[in-house]
Amino acid sequence: MNGPLLQGLSLLGSQFGEPGVHTFQGRNPATGEALSPRFHRAQPEELTQAVALAQQAAPRYAALGGALHGAFLRGIAERLEGLADALASLTPQETGLPEARIRGELSRTTGQLRLFASLAEEGSWVDARLDSADPARQPQARPALRSMLQALGPVAVFGASNFPLAFSVAGGDTASALAAGCPVVVKAHPAHPGTSELVGRAIIEAARALDLPEGVFSLLFDDGIGIGQALVRHPDIKAVGFTGSLRAGRALMDIAAARPCPIPVYAEMGSVNPLVILPHALARHAEAIADGLAASVTLGVGQFCTCPGLVLALEGEGYQRLRERLVSKLALVGTAPMLTAGMAAAYQDGVASRSQQPGVSQLLGTSAAPGHAGPALLEVKAGSLLAEPALAHELFGPTCLLVACQNKDELLTVLAQLEGQLTITLHAEAGELTGWTGLPALLASKAGRLLFGGFPTGVEVGHAMVHGGPYPAAADSRSTSVGAAAMLRFARPVCYQNWPENLLPPALQAANPLGLWRQVNGQRGKH
Amino acid sequence: MNGPLLQGLSLLGSQFGEPGVHTFQGRNPATGEALSPRFHRAQPEELTQAVALAQQAAPRYAALGGALHGAFLRGIAERLEGLADALASLTPQETGLPEARIRGELSRTTGQLRLFASLAEEGSWVDARLDSADPARQPQARPALRSMLQALGPVAVFGASNFPLAFSVAGGDTASALAAGCPVVVKAHPAHPGTSELVGRAIIEAARALDLPEGVFSLLFDDGIGIGQALVRHPDIKAVGFTGSLRAGRALMDIAAARPCPIPVYAEMGSVNPLVILPHALARHAEAIADGLAASVTLGVGQFCTCPGLVLALEGEGYQRLRERLVSKLALVGTAPMLTAGMAAAYQDGVASRSQQPGVSQLLGTSAAPGHAGPALLEVKAGSLLAEPALAHELFGPTCLLVACQNKDELLTVLAQLEGQLTITLHAEAGELTGWTGLPALLASKAGRLLFGGFPTGVEVGHAMVHGGPYPAAADSRSTSVGAAAMLRFARPVCYQNWPENLLPPALQAANPLGLWRQVNGQRGKH
Repeated sequence: MNGPLLQGLSLLGSQFGEPGVHTFQGRNPATGEALSPRFHRAQPEELTQAVALAQQAAPRYAALGGALHGAFLRGIAERLEGLADALASLTPQETGLPEARIRGELSRTTGQLRLFASLAEEGSWVDARLDSADPARQPQARPALRSMLQALGPVAVFGASNFPLAFSVAGGDTASALAAGCPVVVKAHPAHPGTSELVGRAIIEAARALDLPEGVFSLLFDDGIGIGQALVRHPDIKAVGFTGSLRAGRALMDIAAARPCPIPVYAEMGSVNPLVILPHALARHAEAIADGLAASVTLGVGQFCTCPGLVLALEGEGYQRLRERLVSKLALVGTAPMLTAGMAAAYQDGVASRSQQPGVSQLLGTSAAPGHAGPALLEVKAGSLLAEPALAHELFGPTCLLVACQNKDELLTVLAQLEGQLTITLHAEAGELTGWTGLPALLASKAGRLLFGGFPTGVEVGHAMVHGGPYPAAADSRSTSVGAAAMLRFARPVCYQNWPENLLPPALQAANPLGLWRQVNGQRGKH
Repeated sequence: MNGPLLQGLSLLGSQFGEPGVHTFQGRNPATGEALSPRFHRAQPEELTQAVALAQQAAPRYAALGGALHGAFLRGIAERLEGLADALASLTPQETGLPEARIRGELSRTTGQLRLFASLAEEGSWVDARLDSADPARQPQARPALRSMLQALGPVAVFGASNFPLAFSVAGGDTASALAAGCPVVVKAHPAHPGTSELVGRAIIEAARALDLPEGVFSLLFDDGIGIGQALVRHPDIKAVGFTGSLRAGRALMDIAAARPCPIPVYAEMGSVNPLVILPHALARHAEAIADGLAASVTLGVGQFCTCPGLVLALEGEGYQRLRERLVSKLALVGTAPMLTAGMAAAYQDGVASRSQQPGVSQLLGTSAAPGHAGPALLEVKAGSLLAEPALAHELFGPTCLLVACQNKDELLTVLAQLEGQLTITLHAEAGELTGWTGLPALLASKAGRLLFGGFPTGVEVGHAMVHGGPYPAAADSRSTSVGAAAMLRFARPVCYQNWPENLLPPALQAANPLGLWRQVNGQRGKH
């Protein structure tokens, strides 16, 4: 490995933590081999220290302004690029993901960092609003009001297992929180501790190079749940970013809601990402849809939040063709290691138990070596799914449930009963939707992103992306964890009334020294 | 009374509910007299019906678009103006508030309705974002992404006791939710049921005149907590608006967070709205500040969320002048009825029990007839407040606590320990802040609105207003319950990927048929 020698210790600001009693190791999921070095679980007092540093850093870091926040993110991106070979060597060992995927994910990660850097530098995201005074107004004078978004304070971020770079230590949650002016304390995912340390140290180096306040970033290791839960409970943590399972995400939501002072939790908890195929599209494109679906379901061994795990279509000749083609395509996909042995076991158990449910047929089996998984295809009639809605819950891995609907009403009923989703994909021919009044509104009520054609895997990083959706896809449907609007999660509006010009933040000064887009008396403009 | 004859029944969409077993009456707080008619507590099945109607109405109402939402709000405003004399007669009987205040509050209420109407009509609040496709991009094509805010669905609104019009049935929460495209089910405050019925019927008439979907608005009566709690628990309610006490607001937050599918609660729970007076300002303006403070504390018998209940200043000659003048000014203010007899009793008890706390002196007493309240002035040294932080909690009514600080550090320590506030007001002379590094950032970390000079009562309705703040001032510091941004509480982003032009909402169509300000590939403009 050509990166720095791993220490296996938490980072409390720029200092390494102390070795502790409890240690754990990364493990190569393809071989089961334990990886060096041992990582030391953070001590409770180390968590206290990390948060105290973050709290002290918060006002100073926020006050540095968007230009410096952007420079910090660009510095992180450059250092990660410098680690490309080290990560390409280490991360596949920790995750079982292929090197090409890791190099691609690194590029996504640096792209995200630079997107948020550009937003912080441009600055208009703060939604500055200026309402003029009217001293002559009756019965009382109108005050001068100026408002803008300001950083919430220290943010806790949980690394995700399935994106060791793009949703982990320097992933989207960290990048958007830092861009918004918030210090970040990351709880590393224990499945890729070495990757986490490499990335965390790159962030510390970038902070040092700009002489940023000590504590703007810390990284804590734990292979249990104690440190993460204590982090969410800590009174100086002001918001939480998380990507992972519904069970873990809901646990964090419940802890945050029960605090003396509740805080927002932005938990992206995955979904089953239904594909809805209308009859004309099915008749015309059954094979092409099956091919694309097979590729999307098995991409990354099905370990994406947007893996399409449910297909709704009307029974008939097109449906038969779709099913046959899907079976034959999926049968060609081999087994591969999942991110952890535990995930692979949960996947095998889940497929086995679902295939035993009333009305469920297993069209394609799965047997794989321990730690590995292969595709599984299940089928159920809509009536059985309506009787057992839990069949439509996410099963993490390369599997899909075909739902055969007898008619339009049955399909709409299944859709109406679905829980919130990250995405829903609609396949329909031109003009076909005229016969499906209300379907688009129904879809929009259920998901954060609606695709027309195509497949949901692949979450574009841009200004208009929404990666979120109604619970349980996400904790807070009003937010996105990918794309420009992710920054809005970590700020709140503050209004200044009759505040002296020279004491106002630059974003609110009359001369608009930052050149922002603002609302002046409700009129938008670069003024 | 020259309004319609009151029925005392809930409104389930456009239909009156049924008489029930349990009834209650409004009561004139000035006289204790029970008012006619009796109001019937809504039955659980009536709640079910109201929410079912709202749920059915939700997609159709949302799809009507901003022009019709605006017309609805304008229709409500016109009908309320037609009820001005009826309200000016009835509402003072129910609330003890003077007629002039009610006429003023009506004007504020119609102003709010028309502000949200104009925002809905103009339409740019949906934050439309369009990212272009790039089919040639490698390694994969970039999809076309378009996102906008869309209505959350049925919203539960709780009428507030202290603003029978502006924060009740057709108040800011209702107006902003309807403007965002959400049906509303209001739980009327039992202290002004007649006012609530008059206003509720005006809303129903406005909906009828535009042939809006049945169920876009319902009104439920209850003098207990059962209906309100059941409303927050109902799975088809998607968000909650509330103004009232911390205890009641937190109870609703906890219910909402414990639902199988948690929902946002926007509870504005008041605060103590500290005034911080720096030495030079105090030396120069002690008397003027005392005069303004006395007026602000006693405005509306201290029954405003923004009543300034805490004053921080350094001991010395200026402080003595402030204290003396405040005592003499407050002593001139007579007693007046509070909104309910219970509130007046709680106020009297609160003042009595606080004045017994260690270190607290009562500078001005209060004795008043049952149901009435007069000003009370308490004083404490900063050290005693630091030892007993609950002294800085809100005590609803015309009272204020002077906090004498020995030095700058002590004042900053008290500030740092304060809970979240709706407002903090700073009185300082030009240049005086140079000696108080970090004070503006500390203030901004504690409140939603910062005033320089002046007094916090009077919450301007505009584009830049923030009426909210860190918990416990508000449930969700990221939101405001007054001003244009209040609409953002009731919407979430939805992204359309590769969606056909003719199926997109107008706000997202390429030709920009609504003429909105949008972000196209991250560039803001009316394009």
